[in-house]
Amino acid sequence: MNKKTIQELGEFGLIKHLTDNIPLVNKSTVKGVGDDCAVLNYESEKDILVTTDLLLEGVHFDLTYVPLKHLGYKAAMVNLSDVYAMGGMPKQITISLGLSKRFTVEDLDEFYAGIRLACNSHEVDVVGGDTTSSMTGLTISITCIGEVEKGKAVYRSGAKPTDIICVSGNLGAAYMGLQLLEREKAVFYQQLEENKGKETPEMAEPDFAGREYLLERQLKPEARRDIILKLKELGIQPTSMMDISDGLSSELLHICEDSKCGCRIYEEHIPLDYETASQAEEFNMNVTTCALNGGEDYELLFTVPMSDKEKIEDMEDVKMIGYITSADDGKVLITRDGAQFDLKAQGWNHIQ
Amino acid sequence: MNKKTIQELGEFGLIKHLTDNIPLVNKSTVKGVGDDCAVLNYESEKDILVTTDLLLEGVHFDLTYVPLKHLGYKAAMVNLSDVYAMGGMPKQITISLGLSKRFTVEDLDEFYAGIRLACNSHEVDVVGGDTTSSMTGLTISITCIGEVEKGKAVYRSGAKPTDIICVSGNLGAAYMGLQLLEREKAVFYQQLEENKGKETPEMAEPDFAGREYLLERQLKPEARRDIILKLKELGIQPTSMMDISDGLSSELLHICEDSKCGCRIYEEHIPLDYETASQAEEFNMNVTTCALNGGEDYELLFTVPMSDKEKIEDMEDVKMIGYITSADDGKVLITRDGAQFDLKAQGWNHIQ
Repeated sequence: MNKKTIQELGEFGLIKHLTDNIPLVNKSTVKGVGDDCAVLNYESEKDILVTTDLLLEGVHFDLTYVPLKHLGYKAAMVNLSDVYAMGGMPKQITISLGLSKRFTVEDLDEFYAGIRLACNSHEVDVVGGDTTSSMTGLTISITCIGEVEKGKAVYRSGAKPTDIICVSGNLGAAYMGLQLLEREKAVFYQQLEENKGKETPEMAEPDFAGREYLLERQLKPEARRDIILKLKELGIQPTSMMDISDGLSSELLHICEDSKCGCRIYEEHIPLDYETASQAEEFNMNVTTCALNGGEDYELLFTVPMSDKEKIEDMEDVKMIGYITSADDGKVLITRDGAQFDLKAQGWNHIQ
Repeated sequence: MNKKTIQELGEFGLIKHLTDNIPLVNKSTVKGVGDDCAVLNYESEKDILVTTDLLLEGVHFDLTYVPLKHLGYKAAMVNLSDVYAMGGMPKQITISLGLSKRFTVEDLDEFYAGIRLACNSHEVDVVGGDTTSSMTGLTISITCIGEVEKGKAVYRSGAKPTDIICVSGNLGAAYMGLQLLEREKAVFYQQLEENKGKETPEMAEPDFAGREYLLERQLKPEARRDIILKLKELGIQPTSMMDISDGLSSELLHICEDSKCGCRIYEEHIPLDYETASQAEEFNMNVTTCALNGGEDYELLFTVPMSDKEKIEDMEDVKMIGYITSADDGKVLITRDGAQFDLKAQGWNHIQ
């Protein structure tokens, strides 16, 4: 099949090609792609949430092992996750792309297939964007708009001493998945080197058997809409919340700083998957460190008043890992053997 | 003075440094920078407008002659312009930056000073963004949110035969400004070459005397808030509208396509500034071609019903350049000598 080039379509043709036939599902979407602005209408009983993310090739993703469909899916998902982290529901998304010449229309179809998959399952409308050429790699900028009941947005600043600290799902798996992918990439390039000049190169296939879950956590994270819906159903209004993108330590320190409080969390309560633990052992890494600092799990970290303890105990896939203290008590991790350590942010710092 | 590096501040420190003490002026802004999302509240009698732009170094701007403060100003302004082009008023903006190591905190202060200047004069709140490292040049992604009376957004699709085609300000000046800057850049590099090895290099200063207006139009464009306010005051609801970013021809063809109609415009009525015409002559360029295809003027192109003709005649800085016809009559430019030409889009196509 002939691969159509982006140049043949032109900027406007490309946008039309990518966004045609995207059905709009939300009442709040009045007009999507195709004019100077998208037009939305929200009831005034709703507060509107806006978040934006910039993703750059070579900094945030590596196309040598990330398929474009997965990249589209993840790029959308990390933005939806920010809306959930405010206790809201995402409704609209805009996508801007900077593209170098090496990308074909089929590549972008793949990328958009991932975007659409994420948006469909979270009932989000694609309402706009911008497409431009890039001198270098792929640039992705996504803005997501959502809603929350007026006055009910959950900030980082509302945690109070004695509040219980909760985490959804499990931590460290996405980081382990990244380590696996990086290892296989290194092996691949090493084999390329060894096979130089050979007529029949011998290349071993990467072996990810038994590690599918870790790869999925890295390549296809799932924002926790289910947790937000469940909290609402149970009548729980968290006092503070964030999504875990940079790592549990980093996010918890943000909550403590903004809420002017301290925290005590317990190593033994940090939720881990079996595969994460077993892979960490194979890599000779400390699994707790991975869970604290790995990042990219896109799980929810939130605090609730002590009075909600029983409700939380009944929630599936949510673990209580400690509690909020006064600022004077510091930010502390209690290890399995009872030792105390100060929590430090060692999460990804994208300014290098 | 020691220039502080971005690394010393870190990502969160940098965002705090750049956005601290930005006062919020709009009632619809509930919470600005500093959480997973910004929080807004709009009355349901308002429709919300959302637009986004991605600007890449080497594609959209050239830092050899664009000062960072001007770049910030213009980056904000082009987004505000998209909201005005829907007949609305911009209210909030988010700014994402991808930064390579060569930028200092002072550079970003300059850039943000430009952003703030634009936002202050248009009463827009900076409510969020993202800051990340970049392997290559400067990446800027801006999203602007605004409001318009419910149901009153002006689309590209509402023009009807006999509607009058109007343009604010004058056209082609921004393009002439760009040509001037490009010429001086070439001269500069040529002088560098000629002075190689010389102990006392002789570099002539660029001479822009008498051309300040053209440079200002290129480096510091002004979105036409005043025109939108005046149209409202006069009770004029345009049937279609766009801002002129790619060039008059390109935008007019968009309106004709989306409105399923044709147009007749008259060369003699296209508004030109004296400096544009005189500079075009110096460059041996056709000034009408510059006005039709130059782009980046950020003036407003709009259509109004014939019944509004007298009101438009009374408006300062708005010219009637022709009228809408049925689609069968084509999209036509009538030259000064009465010849007819089909309008063609030769505007910037950023996909190269």
